[in-house]
Amino acid sequence: MKSSSGFSRLPRDWRLTPEALEQRWACLQQNSQNQVLQQALLSTSDDSALDCYQKNIENFIGVAKVPIGVAGPLRVQGAFAQGDYWMPLATTEAALVASYHRGAQLITRSGGAQALLLSEGVSRAPGFVFETLRQAGQFGTWALEQMDYFKAETAKTTRYGQLQEMHISLEGNHVYLRFTFTTGDAAGQNMVTLATAQICQWICAHSPVAPKYHFIEANFSGDKKASAQSFQTVRGKKVSAEVCVPARLVRRFLHTTPERMTDYWRMSSMGGVLSGTIGVQGHYANGLAALFLACGQDVACVAEAAVGVTRFELTDEGDLYAAVTLPNLIMGSVGGGTGLPTQQACLQLMGLAGEHKARALAEVTAALLLAGELSIIGALCAGHFARAHQSLARGR
Amino acid sequence: MKSSSGFSRLPRDWRLTPEALEQRWACLQQNSQNQVLQQALLSTSDDSALDCYQKNIENFIGVAKVPIGVAGPLRVQGAFAQGDYWMPLATTEAALVASYHRGAQLITRSGGAQALLLSEGVSRAPGFVFETLRQAGQFGTWALEQMDYFKAETAKTTRYGQLQEMHISLEGNHVYLRFTFTTGDAAGQNMVTLATAQICQWICAHSPVAPKYHFIEANFSGDKKASAQSFQTVRGKKVSAEVCVPARLVRRFLHTTPERMTDYWRMSSMGGVLSGTIGVQGHYANGLAALFLACGQDVACVAEAAVGVTRFELTDEGDLYAAVTLPNLIMGSVGGGTGLPTQQACLQLMGLAGEHKARALAEVTAALLLAGELSIIGALCAGHFARAHQSLARGR
Amino acid sequence: MKSSSGFSRLPRDWRLTPEALEQRWACLQQNSQNQVLQQALLSTSDDSALDCYQKNIENFIGVAKVPIGVAGPLRVQGAFAQGDYWMPLATTEAALVASYHRGAQLITRSGGAQALLLSEGVSRAPGFVFETLRQAGQFGTWALEQMDYFKAETAKTTRYGQLQEMHISLEGNHVYLRFTFTTGDAAGQNMVTLATAQICQWICAHSPVAPKYHFIEANFSGDKKASAQSFQTVRGKKVSAEVCVPARLVRRFLHTTPERMTDYWRMSSMGGVLSGTIGVQGHYANGLAALFLACGQDVACVAEAAVGVTRFELTDEGDLYAAVTLPNLIMGSVGGGTGLPTQQACLQLMGLAGEHKARALAEVTAALLLAGELSIIGALCAGHFARAHQSLARGR
Amino acid sequence: MKSSSGFSRLPRDWRLTPEALEQRWACLQQNSQNQVLQQALLSTSDDSALDCYQKNIENFIGVAKVPIGVAGPLRVQGAFAQGDYWMPLATTEAALVASYHRGAQLITRSGGAQALLLSEGVSRAPGFVFETLRQAGQFGTWALEQMDYFKAETAKTTRYGQLQEMHISLEGNHVYLRFTFTTGDAAGQNMVTLATAQICQWICAHSPVAPKYHFIEANFSGDKKASAQSFQTVRGKKVSAEVCVPARLVRRFLHTTPERMTDYWRMSSMGGVLSGTIGVQGHYANGLAALFLACGQDVACVAEAAVGVTRFELTDEGDLYAAVTLPNLIMGSVGGGTGLPTQQACLQLMGLAGEHKARALAEVTAALLLAGELSIIGALCAGHFARAHQSLARGR
Repeated sequence: MKSSSGFSRLPRDWRLTPEALEQRWACLQQNSQNQVLQQALLSTSDDSALDCYQKNIENFIGVAKVPIGVAGPLRVQGAFAQGDYWMPLATTEAALVASYHRGAQLITRSGGAQALLLSEGVSRAPGFVFETLRQAGQFGTWALEQMDYFKAETAKTTRYGQLQEMHISLEGNHVYLRFTFTTGDAAGQNMVTLATAQICQWICAHSPVAPKYHFIEANFSGDKKASAQSFQTVRGKKVSAEVCVPARLVRRFLHTTPERMTDYWRMSSMGGVLSGTIGVQGHYANGLAALFLACGQDVACVAEAAVGVTRFELTDEGDLYAAVTLPNLIMGSVGGGTGLPTQQACLQLMGLAGEHKARALAEVTAALLLAGELSIIGALCAGHFARAHQSLARGR
Repeated sequence: MKSSSGFSRLPRDWRLTPEALEQRWACLQQNSQNQVLQQALLSTSDDSALDCYQKNIENFIGVAKVPIGVAGPLRVQGAFAQGDYWMPLATTEAALVASYHRGAQLITRSGGAQALLLSEGVSRAPGFVFETLRQAGQFGTWALEQMDYFKAETAKTTRYGQLQEMHISLEGNHVYLRFTFTTGDAAGQNMVTLATAQICQWICAHSPVAPKYHFIEANFSGDKKASAQSFQTVRGKKVSAEVCVPARLVRRFLHTTPERMTDYWRMSSMGGVLSGTIGVQGHYANGLAALFLACGQDVACVAEAAVGVTRFELTDEGDLYAAVTLPNLIMGSVGGGTGLPTQQACLQLMGLAGEHKARALAEVTAALLLAGELSIIGALCAGHFARAHQSLARGR
Repeated sequence: MKSSSGFSRLPRDWRLTPEALEQRWACLQQNSQNQVLQQALLSTSDDSALDCYQKNIENFIGVAKVPIGVAGPLRVQGAFAQGDYWMPLATTEAALVASYHRGAQLITRSGGAQALLLSEGVSRAPGFVFETLRQAGQFGTWALEQMDYFKAETAKTTRYGQLQEMHISLEGNHVYLRFTFTTGDAAGQNMVTLATAQICQWICAHSPVAPKYHFIEANFSGDKKASAQSFQTVRGKKVSAEVCVPARLVRRFLHTTPERMTDYWRMSSMGGVLSGTIGVQGHYANGLAALFLACGQDVACVAEAAVGVTRFELTDEGDLYAAVTLPNLIMGSVGGGTGLPTQQACLQLMGLAGEHKARALAEVTAALLLAGELSIIGALCAGHFARAHQSLARGR
Repeated sequence: MKSSSGFSRLPRDWRLTPEALEQRWACLQQNSQNQVLQQALLSTSDDSALDCYQKNIENFIGVAKVPIGVAGPLRVQGAFAQGDYWMPLATTEAALVASYHRGAQLITRSGGAQALLLSEGVSRAPGFVFETLRQAGQFGTWALEQMDYFKAETAKTTRYGQLQEMHISLEGNHVYLRFTFTTGDAAGQNMVTLATAQICQWICAHSPVAPKYHFIEANFSGDKKASAQSFQTVRGKKVSAEVCVPARLVRRFLHTTPERMTDYWRMSSMGGVLSGTIGVQGHYANGLAALFLACGQDVACVAEAAVGVTRFELTDEGDLYAAVTLPNLIMGSVGGGTGLPTQQACLQLMGLAGEHKARALAEVTAALLLAGELSIIGALCAGHFARAHQSLARGR
């Protein structure tokens, strides 16, 4: 089907029905190779199995397959997570699973990681534009007193989410409101969007000073991006995890010393500062992307989740103290992609599927990233970093 | 198998052989559910098909499946990309494909996006520690004159990569060298690691002043993290893309006006500034994560790739000028996960698999993200943002 | 006087008495020139006049003189400032006063600047170190419930300051408390230090879990540095100011158009983003340093005060809307250097000396910086920027 | 004199002549107090003495006086600075001189600070706007090849400054050129402005693709603001300084231990990271503002100069290694305010007035800031911080 502008157009029906799927692939048939592609992307699924993707995708054409490796067991003693966890990591990068696996084992042998969920909240930040600074000020003052109404409006849209806080930022005749909600066991981005839409509607109906115009999100919530603000507050879950690794285990498993690892920490934390990162850490993104992918989290949130602070310190006894703090863990144990077959299986492998598991999931995630920091820094200190990548990527 | 510390241990063999796989799952059998999980993660593959993952994963236990939707066609007029592209996007987030699809169509109807690859380079940054600032200074001065040797060492490790630049940063008695390489059509992180290892070895053998110790990477290269430094230079590929959308198309397809979209841009770019993001943009991470996943890129690199600048402007004729600039597109058309079956199929669907395609791939990616910015900002301006998410996520 | 290590030593008495002053200069007499220097630095003051500096300096050797120019009148309609203000600016940089003067006149002709004090607060951030994350968590939970005690302790140290808020940031076994105080009409840094010392003493006596060690300030308060945190909250006073300049006045006084000035704003705000500034603005530091110096403010606070957001916009009527927002105005109308002779005279020239004037002073300052932004951007748009500096610096 | 808009107007003549000065004060006579103010601001100077300020100020109304204290001697072994320096510090903040003095003595007793000038350069960054990305790309490619012409144009405007580098940043149809110049012994901001104006004129005459419009500075040079870009490159002079302080001197003079000072460094550097500063340091701004003011530097440049990295480390021998690195020291030994009487005297007191002294001045400045870091961190570790401020500010 060619449009008048001379380009092919997909059928308008973007649902996942067998007919729409067939029409879509017919449209993609621009060259002889496409039947092969269709087979590659659809090969292993009978049509009925595809129904599960109905609410998670538009213009469905197939399934991407990513291998999963397991790391662990990872022992965690948190406020919500307690036990030894098998961690499923989906990635195409050689050495990643091996590295996290080594770190997880080291933590477990050291008695496990302590973890602590510190706070929770997901934000939406509508923007309101007024004629003057004075009006903006009036609006801000008024809004501060409407929290009860805002909470009531929120309750109309969700059983799980609750409005916790509102922050006002005024810049000339612009006003940004940042609403922060708890979202139960879901990651919650859609939940907070719907609640905020409801609040905005109420504001427009009741504000004593009418905005010229407004937007439901004015790029002030930190959604899908690393930001200083989210780093300093919370986006999703804020978790800290720590472990004390005895010097003998550092030597035995990482082939280096606590002293050298703290030397590395010092130089690399200044490396982070010198290169202008938000927070300082090693490679949170690796573990996060692999875990998010395996467990049906929103992988795009790696953008915001992969910030935090890693700290290594030599204890008075000569052992290695290591801690990670992650303020932006956007994660859920329900909703989003968590119910899809392979993703649900991965959550179940951890024992963290379904309700009342999101907080434990966040604590375990922090412990996993701690494992990753220990392992990579160990490799960098022992001089194994390049070699490990080489041997694993080239088939061992 | 329980270790002496009382925890289960995976078999040491982390290769992907049928025997190792079977032993691994046996080890995971801690509860009755695990056979179901094993089936869910391995259901659709016969053993021989799993060989393809051999070099991409350790401790393999199965395959994660993520649905792919197609957006497009996306017309791109770049220095390397020329034509109409079907964009495969793997995600579990409702509305994502629909939104990028709408943006892609809008660009195509507007005559296509211009795109321009601006620069290329991937860095590794070893750190060297000396006794004194004076020694550090001597080392820096010496290193500056060894570029020819460093290039020769690089050539010993790779046919594709070339050392382009070295940047020196001295902080007290610490010296960070940042080597930037071109990496051919591969994303290249492993390539630059091996080359840098080779250079470091040469340095240690030849430096007139011996470092106390050194690390092959001192957290100064921007690997797997958003950094001001990478944002201001390049990491992977730096690409800019633009489109001019006629006012009538903005009204017809986005149900808003160029004026309101530039109002939004102004408020949201200040929203980005106020919240302290690196660069200012809307939701690059969404398109990046979905495309990276579909095409076998390193998804963890969303952390660094999802930074850049979006700019909207009203033209003298009243149309909408929109541009995106992405300095950190870590992408390759060969290597990493690009050769895996579904990933290779997705690259082929775009016509961008294999050698000599990486630059076009980066240009098309920038155009895709431009489509995403247009579509989401259109929705925010028209007041459709919450509604679209609601209807798509709840099954239309 | 030579020490045993072979260097000259100043007399130990660092008070400002005639004898100590004489001994100090005797010690500086290492070369023949120093009598000339002594005359230059002390020439115009008789000994009794020096007493005024007694509490503001140690090791006094003389007086630095900086010329003051006046800009204005600057019309301000704020919540606290109302009227036309003469602005004393002390600087050695040619063209600075001329530029602010032009901007102030333009604002006044446009009917004056609106200004609004948005919030107030000065922080101190002690740090506490514990054995474990768990202890850190216990401490944090406990501290949250002690606000009444902390307020009572504060009241023991100051009549003017009040503890408003406490923010807790936990990172592994480290806990940062950030106390924010109002400080009356003083800039208040010493006030909050003494109050925090008192609180820390109380904490150490009462905490159920004893810290291993603590510091009264752990570099988390934003003192004397630009920080994302202070930018996003408040440090000192947060003020926004705006003006609407009719197009004809833009043309007549700035020799450019509102359209070009908004073009400049767009490009320069992206320039700020691309170069990685905190906030985006033009040259707040110029006006701040000159005003701080003239009025006895702590000039080192330019480091933190010179951040904020400038926004220019074309109104529907084709006029120029301009706004500045400054969240970190550390200023006082009493205390610090405000009581010294020339500094007090400058405050009096503005009519803003003494008690109950600090808030108006902050509003007027924001309006001054708005004037500076208008004037410099006007010069950049009209192509006068280089010429103005050249002619003024070379004697007209 | 009242304008038609109802506000007082200063006489148009903004030169520093006795007549203009008299008229100006007559205009300021809005209340009975102003004669007292006039006396306060002009008291100590006869008319002829005011001529010296002729080229440094407009609308002159008097002189601000700030007390100067001396710190030192500060022993510096740099590439350019060699010897013991008396440091004049102008401030109104009690305890500042005392603290730097203590740090300077500690450094000197430890054998002095090593200092190393690492690089030099001052930037201007014009912005050029084109119709399309393609044109922008063409312009960028062309500009890269014109460096010889740009250097030749530079030479027409200055004998001291030389164009060293050009950096191109393209964002959509916007092009930022960042020219970096050496500026001899002057701070050089005006020098680089004039050179850039000349280059822009040449560009407009010769570019194969005409910009729609351009600006001589597009807020991309880091002038008068802390920026990630300047922090990572250089603005003015980049200098590192270090000292090794024996443990016994730490104990004797700072009443604490090297261990506790490195504990503090660790916690406070994370405090800087958590609060989102550019670089991590303690209070560079204090020493910089006081020295800049005493020595005729542009005090507004504290905004950009007060960034950098402080690092403390325990040596293998148990002593304290301390280093500071300052990449943005905008300083000159000639030009600006350096020739004014008291400022020149202060430079001469250091032996750093006039030509060929700017580099040594920068090295000494870095050593001074190192002294300040040692002293304040010592006070924070020993628990003296609050007490010292209290006793000195309240008259001992």
